[in-house]
Amino acid sequence: MKRTALIMAGGKGERFWPRSRQRLPKQFLSLTDDGRTMIQLTVERILPIVELQDIYIATNAAYKPLVQAQLPGLPEENILCEPVGRNTAPCVGLGAVHMRKKYGDAVMLVLPSDHLIRYTDIFADVLEAACGKAEVGENLVTIGITPNYPETGYGYIRYTKTTEAGTDEAGAAEPPVYPVEQFVEKPDLERAKSYVAAGTYLWNSGMFAWKISTLLANMKRFMPDTYRRLEVIEAAVGTDAWESVLTEQFTAMESESVDYGIMEKAERIYILPGDFGWDDVGSWLAVGRIRQADAAGNTVTGNVLAVDCQNCVLEGGEKLIAAVGMQDTVIVDTEDALLVCRKEAAGKIKEVLQKLKEEQKEEYL
Amino acid sequence: MKRTALIMAGGKGERFWPRSRQRLPKQFLSLTDDGRTMIQLTVERILPIVELQDIYIATNAAYKPLVQAQLPGLPEENILCEPVGRNTAPCVGLGAVHMRKKYGDAVMLVLPSDHLIRYTDIFADVLEAACGKAEVGENLVTIGITPNYPETGYGYIRYTKTTEAGTDEAGAAEPPVYPVEQFVEKPDLERAKSYVAAGTYLWNSGMFAWKISTLLANMKRFMPDTYRRLEVIEAAVGTDAWESVLTEQFTAMESESVDYGIMEKAERIYILPGDFGWDDVGSWLAVGRIRQADAAGNTVTGNVLAVDCQNCVLEGGEKLIAAVGMQDTVIVDTEDALLVCRKEAAGKIKEVLQKLKEEQKEEYL
Repeated sequence: MKRTALIMAGGKGERFWPRSRQRLPKQFLSLTDDGRTMIQLTVERILPIVELQDIYIATNAAYKPLVQAQLPGLPEENILCEPVGRNTAPCVGLGAVHMRKKYGDAVMLVLPSDHLIRYTDIFADVLEAACGKAEVGENLVTIGITPNYPETGYGYIRYTKTTEAGTDEAGAAEPPVYPVEQFVEKPDLERAKSYVAAGTYLWNSGMFAWKISTLLANMKRFMPDTYRRLEVIEAAVGTDAWESVLTEQFTAMESESVDYGIMEKAERIYILPGDFGWDDVGSWLAVGRIRQADAAGNTVTGNVLAVDCQNCVLEGGEKLIAAVGMQDTVIVDTEDALLVCRKEAAGKIKEVLQKLKEEQKEEYL
Repeated sequence: MKRTALIMAGGKGERFWPRSRQRLPKQFLSLTDDGRTMIQLTVERILPIVELQDIYIATNAAYKPLVQAQLPGLPEENILCEPVGRNTAPCVGLGAVHMRKKYGDAVMLVLPSDHLIRYTDIFADVLEAACGKAEVGENLVTIGITPNYPETGYGYIRYTKTTEAGTDEAGAAEPPVYPVEQFVEKPDLERAKSYVAAGTYLWNSGMFAWKISTLLANMKRFMPDTYRRLEVIEAAVGTDAWESVLTEQFTAMESESVDYGIMEKAERIYILPGDFGWDDVGSWLAVGRIRQADAAGNTVTGNVLAVDCQNCVLEGGEKLIAAVGMQDTVIVDTEDALLVCRKEAAGKIKEVLQKLKEEQKEEYL
């Protein structure tokens, strides 16, 4: 069966300010040493599974030029612009009805655009197995990340750790697939510790595989109003009324996540544990993990001169940055804005953005 | 007797990098809230004692345009350009022979151009008394700063704390003058503590008052070779050979300080304790003392947004600086270079300059 992918690329990515901006969010930035952007890496690593012409990008109109510039081979009609943000369920639905109109049915992957994966070969194997599991029957398949510490910022998924009869496992080399028992919200630290200790919980990565028909059947059942509006949108694809219908129907949809709207309610949900060096690159602290550090633990980009600095993230361009006696500090210099932030205070960068909003300094957002 | 002043303004001021540069050293910067530069403030506060046309600036040719721009009323011939740096004794001698040629004799003040003084009225009173003491007899007069902590970065001057017969004290309001016993080099901490505890030591401020005739008589006695060259220079003032004579003779002089070359050897040395809010503004740390701080102890210039920062010096311009969770840190942003430095590491800024020299990045120096 044909395979398609929907890459969700509408996020704002405020945590990488001042490199990320409303006009240039995280998925369009390069945060690794190799120079490619997050969305370019995302597309590249699924090309063993899905052809470029079958990859769809869900974003908004403001980012369409960025998508076109960064993914030049992608057909323009594969860029789906959400008129407003309505969380992941309407976004996935929009992708699914486009694909149904074009392909009838297919195995559809759903992927975030702003995560990093270190071991792309292992990742491709897991995706392949996920597609296989999605293709047989009416299964909703997700990929979970094997947790290596009790993170409280992610959702968890509890699964049954026995090989179920009926999986596609042919041999020892095939990634295992397990039935999901429960999606659980972001836990407190104690609960997170117990999840990690139990060995039957995985991090919710937001990656899914299902047939278009399976997803839409579940959407019809659990989100009937949204589904009805998606049918109206589907009928308008390629017509003169397209823009107005999309705007009217999409805007009227309830804001809802796929997790809550469908996955927590549906049956036949399966999960594949992923152990492929996943990182959600949630803040500037991640750059210290991802990039090659010098002997003192500093990751450096641009024209930087560090004297007696340890474990810093130093991100500049042409302008000389001299850092002297700094520890555990993030310095990010851009054309019009400079951030200097203690790593432990990275969560407070959003207060900067809040203040800029209050002071109506939109040019910096 | 006429009063003149020589303001020494040839210093490089590397410790205020990146605002200070080889092409724009500290004396030509404003480091206070009032916007005037260090040399402008220096001239302004001696105007009650010396007329502008009798103030001389010793600097080098590269800084002459800065002097002219910042002191527009000053006669151009009062700007004396040293061909090379030869420490303070040749500099003071150069000023003295110029003045002797013009005035015959006068009371001559010698002042650094890059210190700050908070209480200018008290300062003027002390200068006035210093001039009075210099005018009678063959006295060499200096102004010492009452130490309030055991600084190890300054030289000290030991004095006899009894009013000597023959001083000019007329009443209680007159600043006292004491005989100097000894100039002492920068001490270690233990020694500095004992100096402060003794109550008979003052910081060496580098400010002097003497008659031109007294200074040159002492120079002839203690630095005869330098004096002989100064006589050659004096004879060439206003002639076609001026430039070549100055360059040849000045370059050949031994590099020597007034303190070591004359003051440590001469007789009839007097000191006036100065308690007028003096600050030598030795590094970025001084800016935290000098400027008005906000409630969290931050001194802020330019387009700065501070979240959860304490005791920082934040110096920018138009570009937005967002500082988050920073303590005791100096951030100085300029057009082409940015400094981020822990206050306690400010002494290592010179390592940055050293590296820039090694890498031949002259444009940043």
